[in-house]
Amino acid sequence: MDEKESNSVNNFVPTDRTQVHRIPKRGIYEKKEIYRILDEGLVCHVGFIANGMPVVIPTGYGRRGDTLYVHGSSASRMLRALGRGADVCVTVTLLDGLVLARSAFHHSMNYRSVVIFGRSTIVDDPATKLEVLEVFTNHIAPGRWKDVRHPTDKELQATTVLAMPLNEVSAKVRTGPPIDDGEDYFLPIWAGVLPMKLTPGSALPDERLPKGIAIPEYIVNYTREEP
Amino acid sequence: MDEKESNSVNNFVPTDRTQVHRIPKRGIYEKKEIYRILDEGLVCHVGFIANGMPVVIPTGYGRRGDTLYVHGSSASRMLRALGRGADVCVTVTLLDGLVLARSAFHHSMNYRSVVIFGRSTIVDDPATKLEVLEVFTNHIAPGRWKDVRHPTDKELQATTVLAMPLNEVSAKVRTGPPIDDGEDYFLPIWAGVLPMKLTPGSALPDERLPKGIAIPEYIVNYTREEP
Repeated sequence: MDEKESNSVNNFVPTDRTQVHRIPKRGIYEKKEIYRILDEGLVCHVGFIANGMPVVIPTGYGRRGDTLYVHGSSASRMLRALGRGADVCVTVTLLDGLVLARSAFHHSMNYRSVVIFGRSTIVDDPATKLEVLEVFTNHIAPGRWKDVRHPTDKELQATTVLAMPLNEVSAKVRTGPPIDDGEDYFLPIWAGVLPMKLTPGSALPDERLPKGIAIPEYIVNYTREEP
Repeated sequence: MDEKESNSVNNFVPTDRTQVHRIPKRGIYEKKEIYRILDEGLVCHVGFIANGMPVVIPTGYGRRGDTLYVHGSSASRMLRALGRGADVCVTVTLLDGLVLARSAFHHSMNYRSVVIFGRSTIVDDPATKLEVLEVFTNHIAPGRWKDVRHPTDKELQATTVLAMPLNEVSAKVRTGPPIDDGEDYFLPIWAGVLPMKLTPGSALPDERLPKGIAIPEYIVNYTREEP
């Protein structure tokens, strides 16, 4: 494998759209790090053009290999538009902290965000569709699929699954403390980072649950972080 | 004040773009509830069209009255594009919980999301710009502005502030337990909601902080919820 080939396997090749211009040191093209962000996130924001206007809709998603999947009702206007191969931009953002500088100007946030450009196609094959629904279910809670009642043919038909190839992708990441101007470091102003994290509370069992069904271990010990 | 006028003061009037079609009972047009979502959120996703393609970028924001503000470097491509009055869609999403149903098909998420359509204008007046930077700073951490070194004229010039009128706005909210199909309620499968919340960790004081500067009360007791 020559160096260029190896590079395209492990890293996304920046394009005009994915090259990070503002603060380029925050730009990331490494697949492994980008997929870690996608696998930790729960909600993506899907951008597309409807009647000539931009529209941004939040939705769940899942990833398998180099493909991102979104799904929804077959009646959804968004999914119908995207299924016709429209251009789409999918963004996933994880907020990691508030950056409190000494100056108002240098306040910031620590975050990891992934931006994906491309076009999506409808997954028609029922067997693949079923596999992707497993990906979605386990993306919400790893291990969940083995416990649940699997989709019927009718439910599969009522679900539109869109596949988006992960080709044109980049991430932007800010970490670390505030960066203040030299003289501001002498000011008697508290500065630092307040870490923020999407955190699970205590599971709320459904009121209609029969007695004696324990909360699954993957819910009790729920975490979005990689094992 | 007649009924119609009163309605337009307290509620957004749905348009073709903001009318919630899929599961209309989740649609919300009440200003008070929508502004509560905007005030709790920290990150918005800004959608616009660049070279004919949709782009979705995460960024901070702030609200004052019926205007949403975003800001950034004057060198930012996004801000330059939006400052020219392009159509924009801004979406804020709060994830409240994972909805674990008995069937894979009925898995869902509890969330509150706001979608705003419109066009933005650049805030040029330095006095207004300064007021808006106070809004941004206090949006990150209420009370922060009174403690920090305020922006210089040079910093104000290096910051582009965009204003977006809150006219064409709607929210979509899902709450409550999973809704399974009748016969599935008898299955021996755990179901319920796992609440999720963006939660602060312990503040990390900047290493360059002089000794004896206490962590402010608004950071120690940080919360995104309304007092």
